[in-house]
Amino acid sequence: MKAWSIKKPGGRDVLQQIDVLKPVPKQGELLIEVKAAGINRTDTLTRQNETLAASYPILGVEISGVVVENQSTDPKLNAGTRVCGLVNHGGYGEYAIMPADRAMILPDELSFSEGAAIPEVFLTAYQTIYWLGELDKKEKILIHAAGSGVGTAAIQLARQLSQANIFATAGKTEKLNMARTLGANVTVNYKEESFSERVNTVTDGTGVDVILDFVGASYWEMNMASCAVDARWILIGTLGGSEVANVSLNHLMKKRIALKATLLTPRSDEYKARLSQEFAEMAMPLFQEKKLKPVIHKVLPFAELKEAHRIIENDENIGKIILKVSE
Amino acid sequence: MKAWSIKKPGGRDVLQQIDVLKPVPKQGELLIEVKAAGINRTDTLTRQNETLAASYPILGVEISGVVVENQSTDPKLNAGTRVCGLVNHGGYGEYAIMPADRAMILPDELSFSEGAAIPEVFLTAYQTIYWLGELDKKEKILIHAAGSGVGTAAIQLARQLSQANIFATAGKTEKLNMARTLGANVTVNYKEESFSERVNTVTDGTGVDVILDFVGASYWEMNMASCAVDARWILIGTLGGSEVANVSLNHLMKKRIALKATLLTPRSDEYKARLSQEFAEMAMPLFQEKKLKPVIHKVLPFAELKEAHRIIENDENIGKIILKVSE
Repeated sequence: MKAWSIKKPGGRDVLQQIDVLKPVPKQGELLIEVKAAGINRTDTLTRQNETLAASYPILGVEISGVVVENQSTDPKLNAGTRVCGLVNHGGYGEYAIMPADRAMILPDELSFSEGAAIPEVFLTAYQTIYWLGELDKKEKILIHAAGSGVGTAAIQLARQLSQANIFATAGKTEKLNMARTLGANVTVNYKEESFSERVNTVTDGTGVDVILDFVGASYWEMNMASCAVDARWILIGTLGGSEVANVSLNHLMKKRIALKATLLTPRSDEYKARLSQEFAEMAMPLFQEKKLKPVIHKVLPFAELKEAHRIIENDENIGKIILKVSE
Repeated sequence: MKAWSIKKPGGRDVLQQIDVLKPVPKQGELLIEVKAAGINRTDTLTRQNETLAASYPILGVEISGVVVENQSTDPKLNAGTRVCGLVNHGGYGEYAIMPADRAMILPDELSFSEGAAIPEVFLTAYQTIYWLGELDKKEKILIHAAGSGVGTAAIQLARQLSQANIFATAGKTEKLNMARTLGANVTVNYKEESFSERVNTVTDGTGVDVILDFVGASYWEMNMASCAVDARWILIGTLGGSEVANVSLNHLMKKRIALKATLLTPRSDEYKARLSQEFAEMAMPLFQEKKLKPVIHKVLPFAELKEAHRIIENDENIGKIILKVSE
């Protein structure tokens, strides 16, 4: 089968198509004919990871496709079933292995490209908003990087599952327009105004209950100033740097802030399975009803992976970049 | 009735005995004849709080005593019942008001002095270890200030309720001896060695799952180095300063650390009621069986409140200072 791996760790030029044997599923696993794969920043980081040892893996952590072989005991996942979900590498290939307990059945209403656009960003958004952020109905949430894959997913989940009061930040008008379309109540162009001042004006100084923070150091003081008492501040990226000078623990204590740092990809198989199952139950029906929708920036042919990585690395996309693996 | 208040905010000399009317309980409250009151650092902070407006309150946030009047619908709390629990000020007086839903029935096996030594430190320890720290059976916990009231309570709870692997730090041999007696597995004199090196040696570099941190800035790097992946780091004091010169968010993310800052006293009545009820159910039977015991440094007569504050402020105590209010 055809697949994308790397010659060695490095820039986009190290990406190479290879020909390898189909993988063989073990007990509890599915063999899937991959139809589409999502492109993620974690893939570009893996591509550059100098500590990676040969033989290098097939890249890609999320796919959609059709089950070819079901080595689990779940008859709902028999051959022919349309599924999507996270894989442990191996997504950019014509066939991939997925642990059966994290497969999510893809409703007929959704295309394979849409299915491949769901797992990583919606599961990350769900995990950070609900498992870590513990967002309660009608609470206030501040979502940064509103145009990103996780940002667009988070706005939709907070709107549809929680009727939250949503503050969204981004640096481009088109991203802010998209955020409002998806359900954000208040949008802030961070290049033009201070989001913490806006949050405090709109909330009469009471602040937000949850922050999804992809930015880190450069937003530290403004995030702190935006927190309500008992806020949950979820740190899932450091696009604005990771070194913070002069942190006041008293500020954290006065507001009883919980600062929770997280990543999804390195978590255990068991964690991803529990998360996928809960998400499928809570959110998949809303995709069928079109209340939730994957936001897709562009679908590219299998041969154009380097271009897909370029778009992600240049932050040109609003929503997901999808690699079409087969018809 | 006799009670202790202040002339104005300030040092120990501002403490003054006053004569006031007995308080009158409202619906849902108990009037309690106070037998003993616990002395807490929060009382000394209230005493010094320049933002406090006259008329100044009766100090004291925890008591034991006998119900005189039950204005709740709970017949288990009728007049004559021995109770202990948190009060919203008013503890250093011959009578006090307590919301009925946070009263904990005091078993006959415990004296009133012991009863007054339970609420603040054991509820704080329970809240931080279980509600925020989510300590699981047989996990590893690092407890600083092992000789403090909360420290001695935390060691006992982690031992009796969770069979945890307990690391305890203090700066005096007698405090470390007490910690081992109460159930600590590993004790570290922070004046003599690095606790993070000890933690990493004993755990083969895997670190601890929960930290109870009363220290803050001066322990920042060592606490970070002591955390396991997915650690819960509970910040409940800043005895070692509150300004951290440099924080690396990457360190937090790599270990997926949840840093949760908290205080008990400013929390809502509803929170204190829920906490008291859960604690009474989980832990009070263990006091009856003598598996848990309040650690009392000294019981002082009602007249000697200034001495009680002196001991607390000079950090001379191992365990609680109790004010005997009536026989």
